[in-house]
Amino acid sequence: MDATALRQLLDDVASGLRPPDEAMARLRRLPFVDLGFARVDHHRVLRQRMGEAVYAPGKSADQCAAIVAELLAEPDGGPVVLTRAEPSQVASALAAAPGGTVTATGALAVVVWRAAPPRVARILVVTAGTADLPVAHECTATLEAHGLRPTVLADCGVAGVHRLLASVDELTDADAVVVVAGMEGALASLVAGITAAPVIAIPVSSGYGAALQGVTALLAMHASCAAGLTVVGIDNGFGAACAIVRLLP
Amino acid sequence: MDATALRQLLDDVASGLRPPDEAMARLRRLPFVDLGFARVDHHRVLRQRMGEAVYAPGKSADQCAAIVAELLAEPDGGPVVLTRAEPSQVASALAAAPGGTVTATGALAVVVWRAAPPRVARILVVTAGTADLPVAHECTATLEAHGLRPTVLADCGVAGVHRLLASVDELTDADAVVVVAGMEGALASLVAGITAAPVIAIPVSSGYGAALQGVTALLAMHASCAAGLTVVGIDNGFGAACAIVRLLP
Amino acid sequence: MDATALRQLLDDVASGLRPPDEAMARLRRLPFVDLGFARVDHHRVLRQRMGEAVYAPGKSADQCAAIVAELLAEPDGGPVVLTRAEPSQVASALAAAPGGTVTATGALAVVVWRAAPPRVARILVVTAGTADLPVAHECTATLEAHGLRPTVLADCGVAGVHRLLASVDELTDADAVVVVAGMEGALASLVAGITAAPVIAIPVSSGYGAALQGVTALLAMHASCAAGLTVVGIDNGFGAACAIVRLLP
Amino acid sequence: MDATALRQLLDDVASGLRPPDEAMARLRRLPFVDLGFARVDHHRVLRQRMGEAVYAPGKSADQCAAIVAELLAEPDGGPVVLTRAEPSQVASALAAAPGGTVTATGALAVVVWRAAPPRVARILVVTAGTADLPVAHECTATLEAHGLRPTVLADCGVAGVHRLLASVDELTDADAVVVVAGMEGALASLVAGITAAPVIAIPVSSGYGAALQGVTALLAMHASCAAGLTVVGIDNGFGAACAIVRLLP
Amino acid sequence: MDATALRQLLDDVASGLRPPDEAMARLRRLPFVDLGFARVDHHRVLRQRMGEAVYAPGKSADQCAAIVAELLAEPDGGPVVLTRAEPSQVASALAAAPGGTVTATGALAVVVWRAAPPRVARILVVTAGTADLPVAHECTATLEAHGLRPTVLADCGVAGVHRLLASVDELTDADAVVVVAGMEGALASLVAGITAAPVIAIPVSSGYGAALQGVTALLAMHASCAAGLTVVGIDNGFGAACAIVRLLP
Amino acid sequence: MDATALRQLLDDVASGLRPPDEAMARLRRLPFVDLGFARVDHHRVLRQRMGEAVYAPGKSADQCAAIVAELLAEPDGGPVVLTRAEPSQVASALAAAPGGTVTATGALAVVVWRAAPPRVARILVVTAGTADLPVAHECTATLEAHGLRPTVLADCGVAGVHRLLASVDELTDADAVVVVAGMEGALASLVAGITAAPVIAIPVSSGYGAALQGVTALLAMHASCAAGLTVVGIDNGFGAACAIVRLLP
Amino acid sequence: MDATALRQLLDDVASGLRPPDEAMARLRRLPFVDLGFARVDHHRVLRQRMGEAVYAPGKSADQCAAIVAELLAEPDGGPVVLTRAEPSQVASALAAAPGGTVTATGALAVVVWRAAPPRVARILVVTAGTADLPVAHECTATLEAHGLRPTVLADCGVAGVHRLLASVDELTDADAVVVVAGMEGALASLVAGITAAPVIAIPVSSGYGAALQGVTALLAMHASCAAGLTVVGIDNGFGAACAIVRLLP
Amino acid sequence: MDATALRQLLDDVASGLRPPDEAMARLRRLPFVDLGFARVDHHRVLRQRMGEAVYAPGKSADQCAAIVAELLAEPDGGPVVLTRAEPSQVASALAAAPGGTVTATGALAVVVWRAAPPRVARILVVTAGTADLPVAHECTATLEAHGLRPTVLADCGVAGVHRLLASVDELTDADAVVVVAGMEGALASLVAGITAAPVIAIPVSSGYGAALQGVTALLAMHASCAAGLTVVGIDNGFGAACAIVRLLP
Repeated sequence: MDATALRQLLDDVASGLRPPDEAMARLRRLPFVDLGFARVDHHRVLRQRMGEAVYAPGKSADQCAAIVAELLAEPDGGPVVLTRAEPSQVASALAAAPGGTVTATGALAVVVWRAAPPRVARILVVTAGTADLPVAHECTATLEAHGLRPTVLADCGVAGVHRLLASVDELTDADAVVVVAGMEGALASLVAGITAAPVIAIPVSSGYGAALQGVTALLAMHASCAAGLTVVGIDNGFGAACAIVRLLP
Repeated sequence: MDATALRQLLDDVASGLRPPDEAMARLRRLPFVDLGFARVDHHRVLRQRMGEAVYAPGKSADQCAAIVAELLAEPDGGPVVLTRAEPSQVASALAAAPGGTVTATGALAVVVWRAAPPRVARILVVTAGTADLPVAHECTATLEAHGLRPTVLADCGVAGVHRLLASVDELTDADAVVVVAGMEGALASLVAGITAAPVIAIPVSSGYGAALQGVTALLAMHASCAAGLTVVGIDNGFGAACAIVRLLP
Repeated sequence: MDATALRQLLDDVASGLRPPDEAMARLRRLPFVDLGFARVDHHRVLRQRMGEAVYAPGKSADQCAAIVAELLAEPDGGPVVLTRAEPSQVASALAAAPGGTVTATGALAVVVWRAAPPRVARILVVTAGTADLPVAHECTATLEAHGLRPTVLADCGVAGVHRLLASVDELTDADAVVVVAGMEGALASLVAGITAAPVIAIPVSSGYGAALQGVTALLAMHASCAAGLTVVGIDNGFGAACAIVRLLP
Repeated sequence: MDATALRQLLDDVASGLRPPDEAMARLRRLPFVDLGFARVDHHRVLRQRMGEAVYAPGKSADQCAAIVAELLAEPDGGPVVLTRAEPSQVASALAAAPGGTVTATGALAVVVWRAAPPRVARILVVTAGTADLPVAHECTATLEAHGLRPTVLADCGVAGVHRLLASVDELTDADAVVVVAGMEGALASLVAGITAAPVIAIPVSSGYGAALQGVTALLAMHASCAAGLTVVGIDNGFGAACAIVRLLP
Repeated sequence: MDATALRQLLDDVASGLRPPDEAMARLRRLPFVDLGFARVDHHRVLRQRMGEAVYAPGKSADQCAAIVAELLAEPDGGPVVLTRAEPSQVASALAAAPGGTVTATGALAVVVWRAAPPRVARILVVTAGTADLPVAHECTATLEAHGLRPTVLADCGVAGVHRLLASVDELTDADAVVVVAGMEGALASLVAGITAAPVIAIPVSSGYGAALQGVTALLAMHASCAAGLTVVGIDNGFGAACAIVRLLP
Repeated sequence: MDATALRQLLDDVASGLRPPDEAMARLRRLPFVDLGFARVDHHRVLRQRMGEAVYAPGKSADQCAAIVAELLAEPDGGPVVLTRAEPSQVASALAAAPGGTVTATGALAVVVWRAAPPRVARILVVTAGTADLPVAHECTATLEAHGLRPTVLADCGVAGVHRLLASVDELTDADAVVVVAGMEGALASLVAGITAAPVIAIPVSSGYGAALQGVTALLAMHASCAAGLTVVGIDNGFGAACAIVRLLP
Repeated sequence: MDATALRQLLDDVASGLRPPDEAMARLRRLPFVDLGFARVDHHRVLRQRMGEAVYAPGKSADQCAAIVAELLAEPDGGPVVLTRAEPSQVASALAAAPGGTVTATGALAVVVWRAAPPRVARILVVTAGTADLPVAHECTATLEAHGLRPTVLADCGVAGVHRLLASVDELTDADAVVVVAGMEGALASLVAGITAAPVIAIPVSSGYGAALQGVTALLAMHASCAAGLTVVGIDNGFGAACAIVRLLP
Repeated sequence: MDATALRQLLDDVASGLRPPDEAMARLRRLPFVDLGFARVDHHRVLRQRMGEAVYAPGKSADQCAAIVAELLAEPDGGPVVLTRAEPSQVASALAAAPGGTVTATGALAVVVWRAAPPRVARILVVTAGTADLPVAHECTATLEAHGLRPTVLADCGVAGVHRLLASVDELTDADAVVVVAGMEGALASLVAGITAAPVIAIPVSSGYGAALQGVTALLAMHASCAAGLTVVGIDNGFGAACAIVRLLP
């Protein structure tokens, strides 16, 4: 229920079109649908300009399919994104809701339905190594669901800093940059020191030595000496994409 | 041995019905049965108003079955609950003790024998997401073993706070609320800020980003700004149910 | 605003006594007072049956005093509790709001104004050692603010288990028990194994060896083998008291 | 050296105005001044649209003063910000560079010289509690250095969610929101679920129970169920402000 | 109450000398004295062959004095040890109970009253460095309270392994060895590899680099490749001494 | 080489029976056999009164077999123990060295060859739960290799403290006690408070809630309020047995 | 591009042979080849005297093969090392680039192509136990790729210190020593106390008790009392080898 | 005792000049002096080419002075270094041993006596920020004690990467590089990617956000993507200097 509808509701009470009891009941109700195992939020696209995402882990294939179908049943809804889905979850969801676009992210997949129309923005997704690509792909698939066409610069880790410096122009011209880095996560500091654009860092659970499944990169990115760098959770390519959607004008 | 029995014992010594040596031996013995691999506690239902539970992990299927059978052999015992059982443990226990009620909790199961008679209390079990349902089901199955009929409100996470606010009446009318939440666990603080009822939070090991297998939710629930929230261990649906049984009048 | 007031508001719109715009504005307003640095919640006593507490650390003495005064300005409010206050904060608050009752909790203090009328409940606060008393006192002062008169059993740690067993009668007769324990926190498991009452454990930051400022006790209490034990945050005597208030009928 | 200057340099070599050796030397030199103990970066305002900040801890008062003076000596530089300065550092810096604006942030201070001209943007800084205000003030002082005039909403923690909901209009209308929260950090998830604007969360080291000096809030914010939330380091009000400067058009 | 007394009690009931009610009351009582803030355990010396120790931190000077005095009031008691006492606690305790022997352990002290008569055992206390001496002294003072006369070998750290090897004879002849080591704690493994005697390791909170206040040494000692090494808590010289008392014949 | 042999060596040099070069070479050689992948220590039984153990994880089945065979090839050696062996390692070792006694410890096994002759000592191994039995069995098998016949008391966890108190006589009469406990590890404190014997605690990786794979129990045992308790590493039944062997006269 | 090439470039601009625009473009380009998923660094052998290594985990078999082939396509390149490769990755790489030398490192493998010509240096690789050999083999294979012929001393752990002391001559004569140790990592301190050579410690993830997958050894090695010991990441045999290559003259 | 002396000893036995008993005693004795609280190692300079260092924390001023004096009493000894000394320790040491050179390292100091004669090597000490200088100075003072003259490049953090690139020539020409960096420690990776020289990283306890007193930098440096980087403990400038001394030819 947006502000206009709220006003209308109260006008209806004032004009006698609607009894107070009914209005009181309505005020408690915001637009979601309760499937028993999930309360599907049809309001999110209005409230947040983002589509609804279904995080697959922990849900049965049937639950994934039912939630996706319910979301697509809303005629004015935005993009629908199923993330980190196993093959059986992908299959169920596509059976219930044909037409989704599947992007592999390592052993899992992202599926997108009803992608937003294309919009123009220069978004860079920079990875430190090849092993960071599955996370980068979760990010790019989510960006594409929202109509964006990011450019991926893979394998720019700081051990060969000239590989990053070769892309200085793209970095300084970008509207926003996502840095995807495991191990020590140093690439994020370096990129944030080069560009004036918003930089969102994704710590990745890859790496060895003392990478601690991404905790080291997460901590390092937060201890960064580069001002204005922000960070999302470990391996959270979806979240970084949503942050980009939030900050674009 | 309760206080009455202790008094009887000493009266018997005083009256000469029982020699001191025998009494001394009895005082050392409280009612448990030693199976060699387990000391089965027949005293718990008297001492704690709760039945005895058998935690399946780490026990063989035969051990599970033998302990359940021993507990059911006590004629005046209360409910018997087998938790987190694998299929082979469930099968052995049901073969040894037919008539148990099986509830799935993800890949595992809870089995209940000799459930308590129904009693009236308004218990809410609120989950943040669909992936928290297996833990919620361990909780509800244990509550049902004790005669309670909880209501489950699934998928009320704070990212769409209206989904929770839609249930404000149930929350304020509840006799007790269990909040089941992984990820950042924020739902517990929110619920505890809305209701005057006792709120018991279960951190769940689901989630990603920096969820650390439930440690983040556990810490966050303990750092909560909501007064009077209490917390049980990670994924401990059984423990939260027992806490409810303790606090009901 | 409670449900009755909400109904009245809508009735007023329906009857034309109040224009919709004004009602819409009211619906956004719940009863708090914004002091600029704090939004004082006059609604809590209705919503949660608990008074409002002011957590002193991080607030200036003037801020403490102003918040306390604002809370006491509400005529129908409940108890007001200032916790973990330094001497200068206590002095400012008492200057602004005379008549508070001061309880020392180590180097800090709890101050209570407008304590609730006495009510009857058998509450035990059991400590493992003498060094746990400051946390126990934060708990008892908060309980007393709500009209309760807890009994303190100090120094019952498991290294001399007979000291606890001597109080078995009080434990089994209690309506609720708070266990205050640092070091390894084992007392909580033991108490919860003896009594059927609700048991709320407070891990304490005292101790040495590997106590890790209370983290060890907190973890140990959550890994407890005693069913139905619940836990609050480290040193959180105030929170345990609020949990007691929630669960009493 | 920006792209234009680089082009000029190479043109000069091509035209014979500048020998190759000299050009080669220049290519190694970017505009910073080496004070021995610091390499002052005059290039940052061009490269990043942000001024240079001097992080006071670990620097002597004289070092702070010298770096600030050097930065102000650059005629075309942007704002200069000295953060987390102790009184002696503030005094030395103001003696060397009069005219700075001092904002207290708890026991420390932020000093700003040569603030940018005012620009229009609706920035909200929302705090969970009163104790989060020093961090919020580091953020607002830095935003003001860049010409922004943020609005502060203090004490909106989730334990009384109506206090936040009263500000729903400001939240949905904001261009960007900073959430400042210690303890369990749940406010960030809630705000990100309400507004479509970019939300930057600052975990704060205040709190008790299991707050672990801000680590709990940092982890919880990264495990958030709200999509598109980004996070900066613990207590890093300066960093959040710089992130806002980056993302504004 | 020992087994003989228990038998006597029951005999008295049987013979009518003592009514059952009185016996029942006695069975609940074991020999401690409740000072209100402490339950002083007069039974420990019988039960554990060790005296009672008073751990000073968290107790007021008056509480220390009162507990010590109560312990000494028991005529048949064993040694009384006050550990980690600050000067004011030492002074109060000595005023209440003159005649204690004071041993400095860094800034704190151990005080011993009523030391046990000398007994013969070859106890070695080996330290890795000079900075480990305060912990070693807490251990030796406690050993001396129990009549033992340990030999201290200071500064035998593995960086100069010949310094330890020079004492191989003492190590192989010892009845028990305590190893006191901070930093990486490697000395414990080395000693346990040389001697057949029981080796008890005390991790010490000294050290730098990544010593983590003794946590590194504690973990390293538990991961030791030397078979049969046991460990006490960080800096717990008192506990290691008690472990020695337990294991001597 | 023991002290006698060393003396003989030097006597031989003095008498000219052995040239200095040869003696110098011998002094560098102590009795081990280098298999390339392992330096088998034939000296341990003399040096430490314990046999040599082969820790199977990380070794190939062939390596296990070769080391066991080499150890048994020493005619005067003591017991040989292969711990935590997988079935293929057990099979290879028994093929190379028939006659070993196999004890299952969960999915793994302990194999013992050339067990020491029986000796008399009252050793108790007490477990908190049934799931702790595999670790207890690693301990008892190792004790039996050294000629000891421990008594196991299973399932004595503190949630039903009477189950432990029923065995008070065995506890007070024991020469040494091993406590095997996962979860919160509270049983160790309780046992150490009851008996005067040496108590060695083994934290176990079983448990849930916040057990952290045994880390919680390890920390809790080190923060224990019971004096003189010592601890070995997580699940280290072998190490606890060796500690018992060290401390017996 | 090395310094000579840079000079040539500028000379060409000066002489008019090359237009400034082209030079500016070249200056941005350093010698790597962008395969889309990887930026292959042909410059490393010049810049660092080390070959390029391909870290297999997280890369597909095809990606491994393509990167190896690209590296070998550079005519003047140095050794190429594929580390931690699974069998399918080894097979693909060898199919694309025949002639590699395969060394098993546990379940994984190292493959080396175009090994450097032999050079003379006395390098010791010392392991604490047999289970450390896979990590040692990753180190030795990488050393061999650079023309070195290390000597391995296996199973020299401190529990039998004479096994290490037997190799004192090799230790004192070495040009560099790598210590490979899990568990408590004490061997590194001991070796560094014996030899004047550079000592590089590799913590290994093997071990039990409280080894925490190598974190304990890593921390212990950093808290070492031996001066001048340096450490690489957990299990990082490759990194230690590269450190050796860096420090040899 | 070096190898020559050992040979002489055995020759003397062989020739009858020295009885076997005396030789046996000598073999147990290596050259240290036992001061009771310290075993001063006069052998280290021979064994390790490094002087002996005295780590001041935890030692009394008198103990520092006595150890320094004892070390200087050895006529052929090398440099003597007192590290992390407080003013009172410096004063005592200089009173006992005049002529030491004092270098401030923050609030503490390094004192050097009997510095080695100058030797030629190009050593760079690079710091990320000004706040890293105290640690850098501990390193440079120790290097100077061994005759080296390092060059310090301060404030080269990656947030302005051109500040580091300006020193590329020094980096590529260095014989060894020490990187001193707190916060996220990214500078170490970057430097190691540029130079072929040995790079030793010192994590520093400065920083904020999520720096965790240097633990984040330590972990990040170990997770580095730059091959052959080695690391010493947090703030261990002394250790890094010793590592340099070890690796120089």
